Parts: sequence; structure tokens; C-alpha cells
Amino acid sequence: MQEFRKDPITGRWVIISTERARRPHAFAREASSVPHGGPSPFTVGNEAQTQPELLAYHHGEGGAWSLRVVPNRYPALRVEGTLEHAGDGMYDQMSGIGAHEVVIETPDPNVALADLPEARIADLFWAFRDRVNDLKRDFRLRYMVLFKNHGEGAGATIGHSHSQLIALPVVPRTCDEEIAGGKRYFDYRSRCIYCDMLKQELQTQSRIVSSNDGFVAFAPYASRFPFETWVMPRRHTSHFESVTDPEVRQLAATMKQVLQRLDLALEKPAFNFVIHSAPVQEGPIEHYHWHIEIIPRVIRVAGFEWSTGIYINPTAPEEAAQFLRDARPASPA
Amino acid sequence: MQEFRKDPITGRWVIISTERARRPHAFAREASSVPHGGPSPFTVGNEAQTQPELLAYHHGEGGAWSLRVVPNRYPALRVEGTLEHAGDGMYDQMSGIGAHEVVIETPDPNVALADLPEARIADLFWAFRDRVNDLKRDFRLRYMVLFKNHGEGAGATIGHSHSQLIALPVVPRTCDEEIAGGKRYFDYRSRCIYCDMLKQELQTQSRIVSSNDGFVAFAPYASRFPFETWVMPRRHTSHFESVTDPEVRQLAATMKQVLQRLDLALEKPAFNFVIHSAPVQEGPIEHYHWHIEIIPRVIRVAGFEWSTGIYINPTAPEEAAQFLRDARPASPA
Repeated sequence: MQEFRKDPITGRWVIISTERARRPHAFAREASSVPHGGPSPFTVGNEAQTQPELLAYHHGEGGAWSLRVVPNRYPALRVEGTLEHAGDGMYDQMSGIGAHEVVIETPDPNVALADLPEARIADLFWAFRDRVNDLKRDFRLRYMVLFKNHGEGAGATIGHSHSQLIALPVVPRTCDEEIAGGKRYFDYRSRCIYCDMLKQELQTQSRIVSSNDGFVAFAPYASRFPFETWVMPRRHTSHFESVTDPEVRQLAATMKQVLQRLDLALEKPAFNFVIHSAPVQEGPIEHYHWHIEIIPRVIRVAGFEWSTGIYINPTAPEEAAQFLRDARPASPA
Repeated sequence: MQEFRKDPITGRWVIISTERARRPHAFAREASSVPHGGPSPFTVGNEAQTQPELLAYHHGEGGAWSLRVVPNRYPALRVEGTLEHAGDGMYDQMSGIGAHEVVIETPDPNVALADLPEARIADLFWAFRDRVNDLKRDFRLRYMVLFKNHGEGAGATIGHSHSQLIALPVVPRTCDEEIAGGKRYFDYRSRCIYCDMLKQELQTQSRIVSSNDGFVAFAPYASRFPFETWVMPRRHTSHFESVTDPEVRQLAATMKQVLQRLDLALEKPAFNFVIHSAPVQEGPIEHYHWHIEIIPRVIRVAGFEWSTGIYINPTAPEEAAQFLRDARPASPA
């Protein structure tokens, strides 16, 4: 199979080229484990090695902490200072205002997110929501990127399981493009493109990985990467932070399912996931639908991809979804 | 330093955040060497292992070949067939028409492009030009991506030094964005944004890496990656394939300079380079200016970057350019 497929939201092309197709076990995997440089700075007893915590949940034995949020030790951006714009000849710059935080998902340095109980995975999403709601009171912060880098091949520098939050004074181009694409579709059809996509995926079934009453996990039609998986709420909402209590439980169950299936099919790959959500200072948007994009890092992005924005994907999403459906965790959630 | 910088052409933001700054030698380098799975399929005597050659230059001893262009053994796209569009419910696809070729830069499996004589580096650019001029006679092919992946960390799967050409039936989004950005600037100022950039860089000097009468190599103001370097012709031209004979010689000298300096400063890093040029079926464009973008692969792109399009760069381009100027090849070209 050699075909171009168009992402209906952004209009970007991908090339599905299975000429050099490999079965999951044959992928040259990036190592998912991170070499530890001594004991984890995130573990119990090392709390003083991080900056003062911003949030903690205490569901451990005897009320011990089970999740902590701390400022990133090497923040890409800082909240201190004022947001100023300046010119430098023909160039433009802006001060590096923002926030960069780390969610320590567990006190145990040796357990992965996929292997935590569902209630602890749910806590990660509660922590994201709590931090977004706190940070968005600073009106300079217009967008929050909630994401996880798992494994060295995915950019993680610390092995202890954690996620990150970066708050930005600008709306990223990717978000602008998704919202603009959603609006183009809505203006013509008066329907949400993401809701329509869910409907078609549930009818077709061939790209579905897992689903429950609240969420559907599927391999998108124009997948950029092998085993790329999107997790989308059935209920139309533009903002992640408006999740409900039952939804967080359903999301945790779906994420555990998908991550365990990826671990089985690809032998614990490095991966990234990112929550795609609407700008935090805006009200509900009828043409945008928040969701999570999960990318296992099993192939390297090379010169062609980063210079064209066109990805060459050697695994058809229908085949990837089939593999993931067939990979059955010991005790399905 | 923590600041946002805006690329004046595309409007994309980068974050220059030197909080976690590292000196060049401290970068966790991706290995640049590729493990060879047996003898190189590209070397002398193994010509039958490749598909029939499309082009060859014979500057070797006794008229032996010094450069060959062959079809990629696992092409992402093929010229055979017709270009057809089809729908699949709400989704759109197009047949995988195109071309995918490999330029074998030298018969020697153990020499890198940077270490070839300038005349042989010039041959790579002549080969690119010759292949573009041949392929563009097929009017379905609207864009040609000319690029090199060097080292495993940059996506190369074969160690023997080679470059690639992919011909596409669509103009990549990145090219559309660059041309649109150039047009916005030209519409207001009646000047080429790239020519203005060259002028400011040559006045400022702090980001210049190397220059000669034909080309200027510099670290762009809004560099996405540490040691990102652009090589730009002084003469305004939108299409790479309109290079002149003296320009190819000057380009080869500049590329050798820059690649050798990168090898010295970063201890032979993996890298990608891509020629950014105008769509091949269009005439000269006054608001676009072809150039080469070189990206050493010294940091990993993680979840934040691919989901936002905003890159976090830990090395200020002014510092990177200084390091590259200070890294002096034994015999400067």
C-alpha cells in the first residue's frame, strides 16, 4: 500500500507506505528505560531535592503522598517578570513568561504509569485539571500543554514516572490550526468534525483500539506514526478541564488499556502523549473537541518529515489497531 | 536567557531557554555512525544490488564511477500508475504517485560527505539539479525534496554516505507557509524577506558561521535546534535548480566548511540537511529564496515540540555560531 491520506482537521497529508512494513516486534525500538544517574530525585525521602510542592495527593499508606506537582528544576519558562515584546531589526521577540511544572505520578521509582491502579492514573488527570484551574487565573497564560515523555527515546531525562505541564503566553500554531480546521467544517455542516470522526470510526470499527461509555481510543485515518492512537471523549467538550468525575474514571480505564496494549504489542516502547485542548482563557467552543494523542516512538523522524510536515508511516492504521486489539492485557480494565 | 523568538518568515515561535545550557561537548549526542549489516550495497562491485542507475558521474580513477543515482529500494512513492483522488466517508486520499531516489555520493563506504574533496561535494548538487530537471518533465510532480540523513540518530539506515530525493504530487505545507510568509513581507515592503535577513545577518555578524562570494552560512535568529545552520545564496533565486556553475563551487566550499565545523564542535554529530526550494512547475518567484537548512541531531524532539510546533532550544544561536566560528578545520576551504 502506498497512498496519501489527508487529516480532515488540519488538512496535512501523510504517506502510508507499507513497502518496508515491519511487524511490531521487528521495529527498531528506541529503548524505553532511562539510565538512572543515582537514586531518583522524585522518590520518598528526596522531597527536599525538588522545589516546594505546588500540589500533593495523599492516597498512600497512612496518608503518605501518592502524587506531587513541583516546579521543573530547569524551567523552559518562568512566571516572574512582565510580558514584554521587543524588536531587533527585522526580528521580534517576547519575554519568556510562562510556567513549567512536573507531576510526579507515584512515589515508586520503578513503576510505569500503565501499571499503576486506575485510581492513581485518574489522579494524574485530576492533578492536570487542578493545576490548569489554578494557573489560568493568571490572564497572561493563554494555553496549557499537558504531556508525558516516557523513556529516553521520547525525550525523558528522568526514569521515575512523571508528566509535565507547560503554560504559554501564546496559543501554539498546532492548536490554532486544529481550531481553524474545526471551524471550517462547522461553518459548512454545523457539526463538530471530531464528533463526526468518532461516529465514522465507531461505524467502521477497523481503527478502533478500545472503548467504553466515556471514551474511544482509535488509530486515526491519517496516522503520522506507526501505532499512533487518539483517545477522545464521546461527550462534546472543547476544554479538558471541564471533565466530570465519571469521565476521569473512564479516561483512566481507557489510558491504562491503551498503554498496556502498546506495552504488549511493542515491548514497552518509549512514547509521548499530549492533551490537545482549547485555549484556557476562552469559553466553550462548539467546533473544537479536546482529546489525547499518543505517539509510540518506534521510528525516527528524519529530514523529509521535519522539512515538509509530511510524515511517511510504514504501518497502516487499520493494521496497527488490529495488533493492539489482539494484544490483550492479563486483566482487561 | 529565556525568551520567545519569532521566525519572521513563517511566524512560528521558538523558546530560547539556556537554563539547562550545555557546552557542545556535553550534549548527549546521538551516535552518528550506523552499524553496517554486512558490506555496503552501495560500494564498487555491488552495483547489481541496487536497481538500474538513473545517473552516474565518472570522475574516479580510469573513469570509474564517483557518484550514482539509483531508485530507492523501498520507495515511499512510485511513478507508476495514475494520480487519483478518492473519498472514504469524511476522509480523503490520493494515490501514492511520486519518486524516491538515492544519490550515492562516493564509492568509498567509509568516507563522510564533509571529508570528500570540494569537487565531489559539488557533484552531489549537480546530481540533484540534473535529477530535478529530468523529473519535472512529469507535470504531476509538483515538488522535489532534496535531503540527506547522516547517522542513525538522523534516520539513516545505511552507513555508506548518500542523499535522497523524493518527488511529490503536492506542495508540502512547510513550503506553502514559507512562500506565503515571503509574500506577506513582499506585499508590504517590495523586498525579499530572505535578502533582508541576509543583509541584517551580515551587518550584525554575531550569527554568521562562514561566508564566501556566493553563500552565507548562519545560525537563524529563531533557531529551533542547537547549532541549526542555514546556507543561503547571496543572489536572489527561488529555485535551487537555477544554480550556476560558480555558485555550485561556492556552495560546495561552504557546505564543506560548515559540516567540518559541526564535526569538530559536536564530535561528528548525526545531522539532516534539506534544500528548501520553490515548487518545480512554477516560474521564478520574487518573494521566495531557496536555501539549505542543516539540523545537527543533538537533542531529542519530545511531546511538547511535536504537539505545539514550538521548539525549546537550549543553545542561543549567537553562542552556537561563535562555537562554530572557533572550530577551525585543519585546512579551511
